[in-house]
Amino acid sequence: MDGPEIVARAQALARHSDSTQHYTRTYLTAAHQAAAREIGEWMREAGMAVRTDAIGNVIGRYDGAAPGAKALLVGSHFDSVRNGGKYDGVLGILLGIACVGELARRGEKLPVAIEVMAFADEEGARFQTGMLSSRALVSGFDPGLLDRRDLQGVTLGDAMRAAGLDPARAGEARIDASRVVAYVEVHIEQGPVLLNEGKALGVVTAIAAGARHLMTVAGEKGHAGTVPMPMRHDALAAAAEMVLAVERRCSAGGSLVGTVGILEVKDGTGNVIPGEVKFSVDSRAADGETLAAAQRDVFAELDAIAARRGVRLEGNRTHEVRPVPCASGVQDRIAAAIERTAGGGPARRLPSGAGHDAMIFAEVTDVGMMFVRCGAGGVSHSPAETASPEDAALAARALLALLRSFAAGS
Amino acid sequence: MDGPEIVARAQALARHSDSTQHYTRTYLTAAHQAAAREIGEWMREAGMAVRTDAIGNVIGRYDGAAPGAKALLVGSHFDSVRNGGKYDGVLGILLGIACVGELARRGEKLPVAIEVMAFADEEGARFQTGMLSSRALVSGFDPGLLDRRDLQGVTLGDAMRAAGLDPARAGEARIDASRVVAYVEVHIEQGPVLLNEGKALGVVTAIAAGARHLMTVAGEKGHAGTVPMPMRHDALAAAAEMVLAVERRCSAGGSLVGTVGILEVKDGTGNVIPGEVKFSVDSRAADGETLAAAQRDVFAELDAIAARRGVRLEGNRTHEVRPVPCASGVQDRIAAAIERTAGGGPARRLPSGAGHDAMIFAEVTDVGMMFVRCGAGGVSHSPAETASPEDAALAARALLALLRSFAAGS
Repeated sequence: MDGPEIVARAQALARHSDSTQHYTRTYLTAAHQAAAREIGEWMREAGMAVRTDAIGNVIGRYDGAAPGAKALLVGSHFDSVRNGGKYDGVLGILLGIACVGELARRGEKLPVAIEVMAFADEEGARFQTGMLSSRALVSGFDPGLLDRRDLQGVTLGDAMRAAGLDPARAGEARIDASRVVAYVEVHIEQGPVLLNEGKALGVVTAIAAGARHLMTVAGEKGHAGTVPMPMRHDALAAAAEMVLAVERRCSAGGSLVGTVGILEVKDGTGNVIPGEVKFSVDSRAADGETLAAAQRDVFAELDAIAARRGVRLEGNRTHEVRPVPCASGVQDRIAAAIERTAGGGPARRLPSGAGHDAMIFAEVTDVGMMFVRCGAGGVSHSPAETASPEDAALAARALLALLRSFAAGS
Repeated sequence: MDGPEIVARAQALARHSDSTQHYTRTYLTAAHQAAAREIGEWMREAGMAVRTDAIGNVIGRYDGAAPGAKALLVGSHFDSVRNGGKYDGVLGILLGIACVGELARRGEKLPVAIEVMAFADEEGARFQTGMLSSRALVSGFDPGLLDRRDLQGVTLGDAMRAAGLDPARAGEARIDASRVVAYVEVHIEQGPVLLNEGKALGVVTAIAAGARHLMTVAGEKGHAGTVPMPMRHDALAAAAEMVLAVERRCSAGGSLVGTVGILEVKDGTGNVIPGEVKFSVDSRAADGETLAAAQRDVFAELDAIAARRGVRLEGNRTHEVRPVPCASGVQDRIAAAIERTAGGGPARRLPSGAGHDAMIFAEVTDVGMMFVRCGAGGVSHSPAETASPEDAALAARALLALLRSFAAGS
């Protein structure tokens, strides 16, 4: 299979963009529909029967040796964040198509059918949704979303109609999970781990558990020139100590990470001691226990800092994601496929700190994910995002080996 | 002299406010002109010859024993910050008036004339000026200011004309410094030092040197879930460490203080590792050497933090104030006056971290300042600002003793 062609297709598909300034492709825009048509054509060329489902997902089926065989799903998304990267999501779709094309060229049928699923909405940038496609496929479309409006005031329902979809039939997108063998997804890593270790491919162990908290520190405002240092209750100095406490505890190793991405000083002025500061704490780990222990320690330490400095601390959780382990059997198949094709000893296993559609499919079937090395320091969700033709070729060979592995045991 | 009356006058004067919601009095508004008229009446009642000068300052003169004697200036301001305190500035004017009233009641003339100067613009809240009055008195009005506009678009020149002043004659406000003995100013402390030490009055040793810097930390943006902690170059974590470094070094004792009042995360988002942070560093000390040493240490430490964390740090100074020492002879007179009237052993000497008109007068004459204890935790520039009637009475007695002290030696 041709690595350069896979990369060239990812770049070509990015010309279907909502903006001429940067690559942005959001649910049901003209660019999005054009991309869906092009993906459908590539699927047909590869030898698949193609359908667009009730919410705009493009699904290509390559039948198994026996008619009506259960399907192994190979999915990823073709929408993007604003000013995104060309490989995020798209690479996984193109690899699935390339593998089926190779099987068809060889006239090779597997015991399972392969369904390559190109999801229309994962990022949810237009209607502030998020994994709308996989949610609709796994547990049904939520009609409450039809009234969501984009920035121009267009409802999701109207956007569907304009794209030739019938909102009243959106529920029909739901699949019959009893006909599914497993779900696999290939995705760029969106981080620097494989890059830094010189590995092209990796096995995802779990999609991380995560929580977001919003904290408020209330201290005492004062004149920067007239309040001696020992008499201060500086909300920003307290928050700064808290930021470092989050960083320190979340550097304990393993899959744990912690980030303060938002920090705002209320009425911040150069000559005024800050009286109130708000900041976010985003923490994630591959398993819920590690995350819970870290949160317990972090919040105990923040409380201690607040008490010592005589400031008030309040916080509340705004967001929580439970960890989704990848099925160990699928992990082992992916690891074996990587070891056979990319070599380099035992495959690197790592958690995914970002969410993926696999999280949703895990509710109804075994899931597994393979990561492909991300170039440019591991940057993603950015025009700087890259994947090399060599890595794309390796990933295609590993994915094909993975698909074939389901012949033997499943 | 009547402490409750002085406090009552400060409260009464605050009814002349630009806003009905809070006390705000800015240069040349209707409220400001009404306050000027009332101050002038109080000066006349106290036995002074009153004039309003070319820029709206109200100046009351109580002649000395010999006609045409040089004058001891007793000044402070009657404009306020937005939503300010009723004693800031005004207290010093009212104490000067009370002392002259007492001298006049007793038929007592001093070897020096007393000029109580009520400054029209010190805070500069309306035209973003700052010590416009004392600057005009000491070195002449800057005609370049006439085109400054307030938030409604009114120029300073038009505001002068509307208040019956002739902008072309603003330069005439400049005084002849050769006819001045010294400048003294009584002001609420605007900080908690005297309050915490149980002292009503204090002697200002110097108006602090200060500098403001604006720093930019450039790190590496990244996904909060996918970049392991050891691979991060988090601009906010670096800035947090820098905030604590400023706090630590500036807590070395003495008059030194350091404040980070502004901190902004560029495009701050909960699930993104901050790539760029800007923050301010305001540092002040009673003398330039202490300040320079602290700045040297702080910026060396910030550079070390940046190097260790692999982030870029840039900074530039946006503002600098040189220290203004109060004349030691005037300090000693103020200390003696406090010790004689308030008792309690040697008078507390402390620097002023905030700027005052005395800084400007120090260019042409000896200056001295007396601080009056600020209630409510030392809060100023706020409706919570207070001064007690008892402290006002003590301050009036000490100021009178100070005025009389110039009879003996000057």
